[in-house]
Amino acid sequence: MEVGIIGATGYSGLELIRLLKNHPQVTNIMLYSSSQSGETINRLYPHLQNEQWKPLKEIDLNKISAEIDVMFLATPPGVSAEWSGPLLEAGLSVIDLSGDLRLTDRGVYEKWYKRPSAKEGLIEQAIYGLSEWNKSTIKTAKLIANPGCFPTAALLALIPLIQAGAIERDSIVIDAKSGTSGAGKSPTSMTHFSETNENFKIYQVASHKHTPEIEQQLAKWGAQPPLSFQPHLVPMVRGIMATIYAKAAKPLSNEWLTDCYNSAYENAPFVRIKENGTFPATKHVFGSNYCDIGFCYDERTGRVIVASVIDNLMKGAAGQAVQNFNLMHGFDETAGLEAVPMYP
Amino acid sequence: MEVGIIGATGYSGLELIRLLKNHPQVTNIMLYSSSQSGETINRLYPHLQNEQWKPLKEIDLNKISAEIDVMFLATPPGVSAEWSGPLLEAGLSVIDLSGDLRLTDRGVYEKWYKRPSAKEGLIEQAIYGLSEWNKSTIKTAKLIANPGCFPTAALLALIPLIQAGAIERDSIVIDAKSGTSGAGKSPTSMTHFSETNENFKIYQVASHKHTPEIEQQLAKWGAQPPLSFQPHLVPMVRGIMATIYAKAAKPLSNEWLTDCYNSAYENAPFVRIKENGTFPATKHVFGSNYCDIGFCYDERTGRVIVASVIDNLMKGAAGQAVQNFNLMHGFDETAGLEAVPMYP
Amino acid sequence: MEVGIIGATGYSGLELIRLLKNHPQVTNIMLYSSSQSGETINRLYPHLQNEQWKPLKEIDLNKISAEIDVMFLATPPGVSAEWSGPLLEAGLSVIDLSGDLRLTDRGVYEKWYKRPSAKEGLIEQAIYGLSEWNKSTIKTAKLIANPGCFPTAALLALIPLIQAGAIERDSIVIDAKSGTSGAGKSPTSMTHFSETNENFKIYQVASHKHTPEIEQQLAKWGAQPPLSFQPHLVPMVRGIMATIYAKAAKPLSNEWLTDCYNSAYENAPFVRIKENGTFPATKHVFGSNYCDIGFCYDERTGRVIVASVIDNLMKGAAGQAVQNFNLMHGFDETAGLEAVPMYP
Amino acid sequence: MEVGIIGATGYSGLELIRLLKNHPQVTNIMLYSSSQSGETINRLYPHLQNEQWKPLKEIDLNKISAEIDVMFLATPPGVSAEWSGPLLEAGLSVIDLSGDLRLTDRGVYEKWYKRPSAKEGLIEQAIYGLSEWNKSTIKTAKLIANPGCFPTAALLALIPLIQAGAIERDSIVIDAKSGTSGAGKSPTSMTHFSETNENFKIYQVASHKHTPEIEQQLAKWGAQPPLSFQPHLVPMVRGIMATIYAKAAKPLSNEWLTDCYNSAYENAPFVRIKENGTFPATKHVFGSNYCDIGFCYDERTGRVIVASVIDNLMKGAAGQAVQNFNLMHGFDETAGLEAVPMYP
Repeated sequence: MEVGIIGATGYSGLELIRLLKNHPQVTNIMLYSSSQSGETINRLYPHLQNEQWKPLKEIDLNKISAEIDVMFLATPPGVSAEWSGPLLEAGLSVIDLSGDLRLTDRGVYEKWYKRPSAKEGLIEQAIYGLSEWNKSTIKTAKLIANPGCFPTAALLALIPLIQAGAIERDSIVIDAKSGTSGAGKSPTSMTHFSETNENFKIYQVASHKHTPEIEQQLAKWGAQPPLSFQPHLVPMVRGIMATIYAKAAKPLSNEWLTDCYNSAYENAPFVRIKENGTFPATKHVFGSNYCDIGFCYDERTGRVIVASVIDNLMKGAAGQAVQNFNLMHGFDETAGLEAVPMYP
Repeated sequence: MEVGIIGATGYSGLELIRLLKNHPQVTNIMLYSSSQSGETINRLYPHLQNEQWKPLKEIDLNKISAEIDVMFLATPPGVSAEWSGPLLEAGLSVIDLSGDLRLTDRGVYEKWYKRPSAKEGLIEQAIYGLSEWNKSTIKTAKLIANPGCFPTAALLALIPLIQAGAIERDSIVIDAKSGTSGAGKSPTSMTHFSETNENFKIYQVASHKHTPEIEQQLAKWGAQPPLSFQPHLVPMVRGIMATIYAKAAKPLSNEWLTDCYNSAYENAPFVRIKENGTFPATKHVFGSNYCDIGFCYDERTGRVIVASVIDNLMKGAAGQAVQNFNLMHGFDETAGLEAVPMYP
Repeated sequence: MEVGIIGATGYSGLELIRLLKNHPQVTNIMLYSSSQSGETINRLYPHLQNEQWKPLKEIDLNKISAEIDVMFLATPPGVSAEWSGPLLEAGLSVIDLSGDLRLTDRGVYEKWYKRPSAKEGLIEQAIYGLSEWNKSTIKTAKLIANPGCFPTAALLALIPLIQAGAIERDSIVIDAKSGTSGAGKSPTSMTHFSETNENFKIYQVASHKHTPEIEQQLAKWGAQPPLSFQPHLVPMVRGIMATIYAKAAKPLSNEWLTDCYNSAYENAPFVRIKENGTFPATKHVFGSNYCDIGFCYDERTGRVIVASVIDNLMKGAAGQAVQNFNLMHGFDETAGLEAVPMYP
Repeated sequence: MEVGIIGATGYSGLELIRLLKNHPQVTNIMLYSSSQSGETINRLYPHLQNEQWKPLKEIDLNKISAEIDVMFLATPPGVSAEWSGPLLEAGLSVIDLSGDLRLTDRGVYEKWYKRPSAKEGLIEQAIYGLSEWNKSTIKTAKLIANPGCFPTAALLALIPLIQAGAIERDSIVIDAKSGTSGAGKSPTSMTHFSETNENFKIYQVASHKHTPEIEQQLAKWGAQPPLSFQPHLVPMVRGIMATIYAKAAKPLSNEWLTDCYNSAYENAPFVRIKENGTFPATKHVFGSNYCDIGFCYDERTGRVIVASVIDNLMKGAAGQAVQNFNLMHGFDETAGLEAVPMYP
């Protein structure tokens, strides 16, 4: 199968290259760019030095279906809204890693993203690519809205509890922590080494655009918005932990929680449920597509506390995109994603 | 004034040395140790190389009152419970940085610390040294139970809200993040560089012993326990951020919160209230005794979100101990603590 | 092919597991341990959680040849000297990642390692596994002494220059920098996060035991010992850079150096020669088996400056061990080692 | 004494603020800027929040002598060349932290800095502010060229050896490692957290502009240029280590080296000579004005190896500037610089 990437020079794009390069079903990778056409990726990124890459090229919609079967979009806001439609019409499947097509309510998109939304017909076609929970629709999809990094960590932890009616729906607090790679490759003061190392920051207080994405998905499983979602920046490159607090709707136990999670994910190759009394750390999933989930019922407070970790560039972006690519094409769900986490 | 330190070779002890060395009212510092007597601190810690230090010496209760006026205890659990009484009897003032004397309910101590508590009379004598809120009692105290690092960050953020009746008392969630220096100088797997760098960990889930300390203090201001307090380990050395979530007890506003915090701390030289819409980062207080507090009223969820940062070895340990030392002896509250935060 | 690992719970052992788990020619991995037999690796290391592992077991020399074909030793000094002989006699091939069998002069070993050397016959059987330079002997070897991490980085950079007679042999200075994973998994003050982060240290000044290993190998290509080799500890986990300075034996040029390196490594899949004017960084090879080499002829000083980088756990340990495993068994040299470096 | 700073919003400028704010002889600090006049420093840098600062203002040469006595220039190349002359004429003393006035040979400046040099008369007036070695001329200077960060670390280590004729002058190799704060506050790819953390880089190979500064100074003490000076970037914020290699001109010993260094620096409050067999780490001087020097005579190679560490923003920039300020005005050499290094 031949695949293309738009946005290959960003961090999610680089991660797609890393995964697809060794994917057993991918025979060719084409890199597309309008602004950097003619450039070669291994000149921009020396870690790719000895790979043979054709230069980045502009998209020609008349020829694209002869070149590739699937296009991955690892692009800033707005690009997917513009290109997904024409690419679908050209006969390609599209996997969009951006946030353009995730929110079904266009007004919500415009409020949180502060920019015009994609046009109406397009959004309706997009399947939300949370692999573990939308598997059947993903398998037949032509257009995937790949989930955001924070929503992936939060939803995998919350859906089993919501589905079971185990928590009070207006009590959910998601305190999230991310490495800097989620902020992308553009140098800024926020991610300048001298001001980021030995520093822990809170950002976008009560205003992060992944909030409505989480709320929209949870609403499908019965939780009423709104909830509190709050991100922080950790002085590390990769990894997200979401620590989730919610009031139990009834007396629970750690055993009940263990059963709840194990049954929810018994057939999910990338979700690992921690044994009672043990908890995940981001490094346990570094470089892999795993989501590790640990939890505790705190009798004192009547709260469930859940910690969910992912590698934000993997399960939080490129890894899940490849997982969806596998599901869409009937490949083994883990194809190209078998790497053992790198530790230490 | 002549002062002594027990536990000078730990990180809080080293920080006391750093502060007291240049304190305008301190004329002599004596270092005491039973296990390392005869050793000199500058051999153990090369950063202190060219300071002139007498060897660590054992405590002789018969002579101690001739040597020093005040003893700082920067020691593991149990030491203060044993030594504070005799030192007080010998005529010294005592500032205890450990957790031995902070909890007034001995059963609570034994449950969370899993060890025998200090004996009854001693605990009653100890004044909880949260400088900003117990100033009048600290001024006349002979024995200070210096607050824990997490409680300091949490209480300075919460007391003004509790006092004003602004938040629902059973809705408080404190998600705390700390650098590694809080774990002390003993090498462990938890703090081994190879397993800590590029890693974010949750620990002591729903079971950290600073939980009852926070609850006990808040109860004095009207909040009923229990609350959720959850610490995490950040790959950095110094700094704590406590992110606090609580349901507003009535509709609030950012302006109201600004007034509430500004009036609570208008005479507090070490608490800095952020302007509306700005938030603190741990590096803003690095190496200083400041606590910076930012906040937001989130109308969508009806929650107040507060972020509070301190340097855990300063306002969270040695800095606040020196602040209390100043208050006890009528010195300028900021004496020896004027250092501008180090940035970057 | 079935393989075994002794020392699987150390960092090189973990890296072997990571590589061999997905190696196309490895059908089974057995983990051996005397001290931890009965324990399972995924309990010790949660990043391996959902892999199916049999418990660590003790070696039974009578049965071992029925269990595995090749044994990897990722062990502290002394273990290989004891076990390699019996394992060879039992009919296995052995790849030893320790330093026990690298030095052919037993007196030199005892002087630098400060312990008894392996017995004479064993050392003579061991082939030094610098894959790129000893390929033909490795292909028929039964016992490999896998090179040290620093020697690998230094030798790959120096041998082409020595071979060409391009540098003055008594002028070589190797200033090396390593991440902390090279120091292993045992927590120490040297690698305690609080004393390692935001710190750059020099260690084992003029006394590191990789010095004679580098000298012995260079002597084979014509350089007389002694040279200066000096390691430093970088606050990062993975990666080594060796910066090498040597006086040119005659006027050189950057073009000549480019030719020299390119021709030396034209058939070496894991050595990447930098274009003139560009230089490597450790992150360019993170998680991969590459060695990237950049260089410059400095006319002002008449010195050649070479910078060579590897991932110390990969090309500096487990990766090169697998490369040698491939060569010994006629597999594709890159089998199991195709991973693209992880960036960022 | 009233002082001014141009370039207060850069990292050296911030460090000057930190030091001068608590300097016992400084009664007022004025911050000057043309591009940011009207802005206040505590809005730009929240760590300075509760200090009272007048807005940044433009320089008015007609009024400046009524406002301040001394001007510190912590500015990019070219600014000092333009402003130092007029400020001197206005009657001020000037301490220039930039490289504009350090090189006495204007052609050398233009070759390495690739820009026009300061005009001739000005350079001749500037005294090179290496405090320990130019003390007598500094005391009467009106214009100080404050040394570069790398030259400070290198020269303090090398001058005693050169002066004693102990090393071969064409054998000097300086391998230097710096934290990122030396690269300044402007975000770049080179200092982007995601590409700097877990990465060790070499840069400006054989071409760093501190090379001629080191050579020029050593020439004064008898060493012939050229030498090799090579910087690297360490994933930490503060700190420089220079590891220096040189052939002994005659058989030496560690005892001789100890005497050599101790006698050279017996009256230098900020240079700390390590005991034989111990070596410095950058964290030993973190936040302080110390330079720690350790050394070894390696009999095997006949080389002296010296490791010299400083905090690049302190002894490598603002700290030494304040030290020179003290010397120029007859204050205690350590005034405002008494802070104990921060550890950990």
